[in-house]
Amino acid sequence: MSDRVLSPQELEAVLRQIGEERYHSLHPFHKLMYQGKLSRGQLQAWALNRYYYQCRIPIKDATLIARLPTPELRRAWRKRLHDHDGDAPDTGGIARWLKLTDGLGLDRDYVISTAGLLPITRFAVDAYVDIVRDRSILEGIASCLTELFSPTIIAERVGGMLANYDFITADTLGYFTPRLDQAPQDAEFALAYVKEHARTPEQQAAVQAVLRTKCDILWAMLDALHHAYVVPGLIPPGAFVPTAA
Amino acid sequence: MSDRVLSPQELEAVLRQIGEERYHSLHPFHKLMYQGKLSRGQLQAWALNRYYYQCRIPIKDATLIARLPTPELRRAWRKRLHDHDGDAPDTGGIARWLKLTDGLGLDRDYVISTAGLLPITRFAVDAYVDIVRDRSILEGIASCLTELFSPTIIAERVGGMLANYDFITADTLGYFTPRLDQAPQDAEFALAYVKEHARTPEQQAAVQAVLRTKCDILWAMLDALHHAYVVPGLIPPGAFVPTAA
Repeated sequence: MSDRVLSPQELEAVLRQIGEERYHSLHPFHKLMYQGKLSRGQLQAWALNRYYYQCRIPIKDATLIARLPTPELRRAWRKRLHDHDGDAPDTGGIARWLKLTDGLGLDRDYVISTAGLLPITRFAVDAYVDIVRDRSILEGIASCLTELFSPTIIAERVGGMLANYDFITADTLGYFTPRLDQAPQDAEFALAYVKEHARTPEQQAAVQAVLRTKCDILWAMLDALHHAYVVPGLIPPGAFVPTAA
Repeated sequence: MSDRVLSPQELEAVLRQIGEERYHSLHPFHKLMYQGKLSRGQLQAWALNRYYYQCRIPIKDATLIARLPTPELRRAWRKRLHDHDGDAPDTGGIARWLKLTDGLGLDRDYVISTAGLLPITRFAVDAYVDIVRDRSILEGIASCLTELFSPTIIAERVGGMLANYDFITADTLGYFTPRLDQAPQDAEFALAYVKEHARTPEQQAAVQAVLRTKCDILWAMLDALHHAYVVPGLIPPGAFVPTAA
């Protein structure tokens, strides 16, 4: 922990450096994905597991809203509930993610049941919700700062997947298009909050630590997929097993 | 607890009967209020204490949203966040309640600080949030069913206060107008949910019990005001003291 207080600009630079070093865009599973080197079954496993992340996001956000002290902050954060739960049936991020799992040929009820998850997916995602419930509001807000780094990974993912998998269409990947606008807006709000409110060495260390942990959560999710479905390919009992293509 | 399962219609009748017997429209403090028999200081005490209820409502609702399992349910409940937190600065139920405390001549920062609350107000309101956090989702939803009974109390309150207090204007009471539409909509949704999901004697007993408890919470808030500011007029240490008119 730094002994001195970083300026807001220095803090931002340190936080961005964490992304440079730890964001899951660096993970071999992501690289295989956008390079077209995954099978349909491996992509199914990714979409199925990532669904759990998606469906817990509004839970995470409502958990934070329930702790925010003012209508102003709650209104700002409420945007995320709209983004993910939508404003009508079959709208919002969760519904769009189900279009992705549909497009990959997964049974929707099976996806929603989360019965086929890798256990590590559940542990990692639940750890994210726990952070927002149990740590300081500052850390809860800072935990979403991985959104600072998401436009690049989304661009790689969408471009690479459309180019390299003939069974994937732009419509199937419709989840990602609005995220290119939503995530930077959300990250900008959170970054401004963190730069304003992390004023002591302890607070600045805490926001760095929570952003590292959040990166670890996303990384662990790809680790679990890689180890179960790529190398060594050891699928845990009860988890989704791709059918031979 | 009834041994047999009530039909949805029977359950609704039992729930409405609870309101007939226990809703705070029956409390002497409410009667004094709409009959024009309270002083400005007593009305200030009411508005100041009731502010704590208002400002915790979005916390209660976000707490429940964080537990609701589907985008559909969360979208339906999210309406309440809009109603109370508004969609822009100085909109929504909390902002409108502050117009009421302004209109009664209370200092806004003092109101928002909640420093002058009667301790019983805090305990009772916090008990409401605890119900929604800790009990079943069914009970959390049923706890709002007091909204079934609110149009009558609002009509009595607004009509009586406008007629009987020359320092109160329709603008000051602007909080209540939208509630005449919002509360029945909300109650209708919750009642339909409860009638559909309370299917065992245990569940039906639980929703009756939680509605009684919610009535007790509202009643206790008026008890505290009555005992502190009317009879015997024993104001607890630290709580708001009206200035002599």
